[in-house]
Amino acid sequence: MTIHEQRWNELADVKEELAARNWFPGTSGNVSIKVEENPVTFYVSASGKDKTKRTSEDFLLVDGEGNAVEQTSLKASAETGIHCEVYRLTDAGCCLHVHTVDNNLISELYGNEGEITFQRQELIKAFGIWEEDGSISVPIVENYADLTKLSKAVADVIKPDTKAVLIRNHGITVWGKNAFEAKKHLEAFEFLFSYHLKLQTLSFLSNKTKNKSFGGVKHGTIKIS
Amino acid sequence: MTIHEQRWNELADVKEELAARNWFPGTSGNVSIKVEENPVTFYVSASGKDKTKRTSEDFLLVDGEGNAVEQTSLKASAETGIHCEVYRLTDAGCCLHVHTVDNNLISELYGNEGEITFQRQELIKAFGIWEEDGSISVPIVENYADLTKLSKAVADVIKPDTKAVLIRNHGITVWGKNAFEAKKHLEAFEFLFSYHLKLQTLSFLSNKTKNKSFGGVKHGTIKIS
Amino acid sequence: MTIHEQRWNELADVKEELAARNWFPGTSGNVSIKVEENPVTFYVSASGKDKTKRTSEDFLLVDGEGNAVEQTSLKASAETGIHCEVYRLTDAGCCLHVHTVDNNLISELYGNEGEITFQRQELIKAFGIWEEDGSISVPIVENYADLTKLSKAVADVIKPDTKAVLIRNHGITVWGKNAFEAKKHLEAFEFLFSYHLKLQTLSFLSNKTKNKSFGGVKHGTIKIS
Amino acid sequence: MTIHEQRWNELADVKEELAARNWFPGTSGNVSIKVEENPVTFYVSASGKDKTKRTSEDFLLVDGEGNAVEQTSLKASAETGIHCEVYRLTDAGCCLHVHTVDNNLISELYGNEGEITFQRQELIKAFGIWEEDGSISVPIVENYADLTKLSKAVADVIKPDTKAVLIRNHGITVWGKNAFEAKKHLEAFEFLFSYHLKLQTLSFLSNKTKNKSFGGVKHGTIKIS
Repeated sequence: MTIHEQRWNELADVKEELAARNWFPGTSGNVSIKVEENPVTFYVSASGKDKTKRTSEDFLLVDGEGNAVEQTSLKASAETGIHCEVYRLTDAGCCLHVHTVDNNLISELYGNEGEITFQRQELIKAFGIWEEDGSISVPIVENYADLTKLSKAVADVIKPDTKAVLIRNHGITVWGKNAFEAKKHLEAFEFLFSYHLKLQTLSFLSNKTKNKSFGGVKHGTIKIS
Repeated sequence: MTIHEQRWNELADVKEELAARNWFPGTSGNVSIKVEENPVTFYVSASGKDKTKRTSEDFLLVDGEGNAVEQTSLKASAETGIHCEVYRLTDAGCCLHVHTVDNNLISELYGNEGEITFQRQELIKAFGIWEEDGSISVPIVENYADLTKLSKAVADVIKPDTKAVLIRNHGITVWGKNAFEAKKHLEAFEFLFSYHLKLQTLSFLSNKTKNKSFGGVKHGTIKIS
Repeated sequence: MTIHEQRWNELADVKEELAARNWFPGTSGNVSIKVEENPVTFYVSASGKDKTKRTSEDFLLVDGEGNAVEQTSLKASAETGIHCEVYRLTDAGCCLHVHTVDNNLISELYGNEGEITFQRQELIKAFGIWEEDGSISVPIVENYADLTKLSKAVADVIKPDTKAVLIRNHGITVWGKNAFEAKKHLEAFEFLFSYHLKLQTLSFLSNKTKNKSFGGVKHGTIKIS
Repeated sequence: MTIHEQRWNELADVKEELAARNWFPGTSGNVSIKVEENPVTFYVSASGKDKTKRTSEDFLLVDGEGNAVEQTSLKASAETGIHCEVYRLTDAGCCLHVHTVDNNLISELYGNEGEITFQRQELIKAFGIWEEDGSISVPIVENYADLTKLSKAVADVIKPDTKAVLIRNHGITVWGKNAFEAKKHLEAFEFLFSYHLKLQTLSFLSNKTKNKSFGGVKHGTIKIS
């Protein structure tokens, strides 16, 4: 198997697992995997496919600017520019973008705050953070209709230790050094989001919303716009 | 494969996917796919089948008035008249009717309002709406026991850009130009419904219910009858 | 295939479907199917099996008093007596007992009321009720540790049109003339339970709890013991 | 099949079932099964594997101190010490550690209380408790980053009738005399946790939170830190 076939299969496998969780509702979302360095090429989702199917037209190979490297009738996902920024700014080998109800809720509730930070949750070990008071932040950017502006907004918030970016009411974009790690990061974030929302609900109900460091979230107060 | 076999298989496939999500509880729901134009014929669910099974008696071919085109012992779904109206009034090629807890809740909570409108949600791109302030409305009609009256009520609210109708405590009827697009629309609506209900819950809890354009909903206040 | 093999397979199939939904948590629950009339014999779950597996020791044949009809090392479910009452008092051909979080919640919240009644929900058509104001009631009995007393309590609330009984914090027992209908009834009840609980939550949040006929429930006020 | 192969397969099977429920988010969690007594050896999860896959590198054989018994390049899970304590202090034959949103919520909400006790729930029969007023307690310990300290904290709360320990924001560790019973206990606890949280939510909403024995919980008031 060539390196191209191997990467294609890894990407098809992770896509299949996420599709089984219904994390690509309405053909939303897109995924990519890096194939070569210097210059970068990566496979990225073709636009508008049903991600529950596995076909030879699911991905196409693009360069670091998101242009097709080979002759193809496929159109790269409209959000390929975001994947380009991730590969340009980080050592990611795989990048996943999915919509879940809970990641959309977090992006909206903490959107004005501009980020959400988790602390004192075992699951943050999934990000390689083993310190008792370690924390992980996810920046949140506005959802610009202009995709060039959106790519730039995402690029602007990526710091060396960033593992994911939330776009407001537009899901999570998360990465890792390979498909295994990208999926691990995604699962951990989704768990933290769901846990936080449910604990926040119980917190509101028992009238303890003054405490800003509640529920595994270090800072950030829910803002409802 | 004839066009009839092809359409049958497409409909059986989408039915299977929706059944796997338990979206036909208690044998509820029904699906159809257009086979021919001028005059219209379409396959529609036979009445009262277990939709988790795949059998040769799942569908029957009917004309634009819902009458069986071929000799058959099968009875078309009691709600075939609604499918007839959808094919008469729109360019739909496939039409899906399912019950979920969340689509029933939206139909009840916004029933008095007569519609629900979503805005500023990435998922509305699934309806081909790419403008930053674009919006999508779903009309809601009362659930008349008289099925002729119900079909007429559904027909009355279908406008050129309508993609779906909610019937109060009676699920969603959604369509697209083919099975792929109908499923895409359905998944997007279900995501928007679930997102809105969960955000509304958090909104109520944090006492911000005055804002009528809250949670990706442009207008409409929850009315509980 | 003999009638015995046929009924066994039908029961194994419905058990498999319900197990896939995790409706037998912790080996709870049990199922049965009638094989012969006059005198009645039925297959019933052997005690304490993992219901996600399909084995030749899943069921044993018992008579109308719940005694094994054939030589066997298997022990009938401790709750076989409830199945006996269902076959004695109704024309059921199949009887299913499962635990879900939502059926347990309904049994607790409406336990003091002694029943819950659903109305104006499309899903009640699953019980053959097509009238616009038709309704369906489920009696709720206390969960006596003495299983003879419990079987009698269940028997006492079964009326001609009863389709299911809830035992407080002990799941639902539901039946139909065959496995297909029993499953249809179960799915419809579970949908109605889940719908009602979620609507009730939104109702509490928007302070409209005075209305006793709220949320598809005709009468019954939530009592929390 | 040797006893080693048999135990390996049992452990691989239960891992597969729990992975299918997404109970190992972000490669979290670990499982073990006892192979020999006097001295004890057991198979335990290798560190950091994707638990949705089934491979020959999923487990390694360790002794009662958690040291590999055979030459291997695999590293035992960092939390193997907790499994050692379980096998030292109980007659467990299998031990499972998983993260779910609900077990993490219970561990946080009742963390200050130090335990949660369930009563008057049919599901506690899964623990062999058949008395009408029988109850089952789960101790809750703090989540120390120092794993030796954490293992000791877990060991300190294990009493003869303990079936599981919750670690604060770090999931449940549950055991049984074999894989079948460990899974049965786990499913029953998860059901009780989910049931309690949802009933607690409805309780808060209807302002009945004074009652400390509410919702199948004998004692313990929700403390939100």
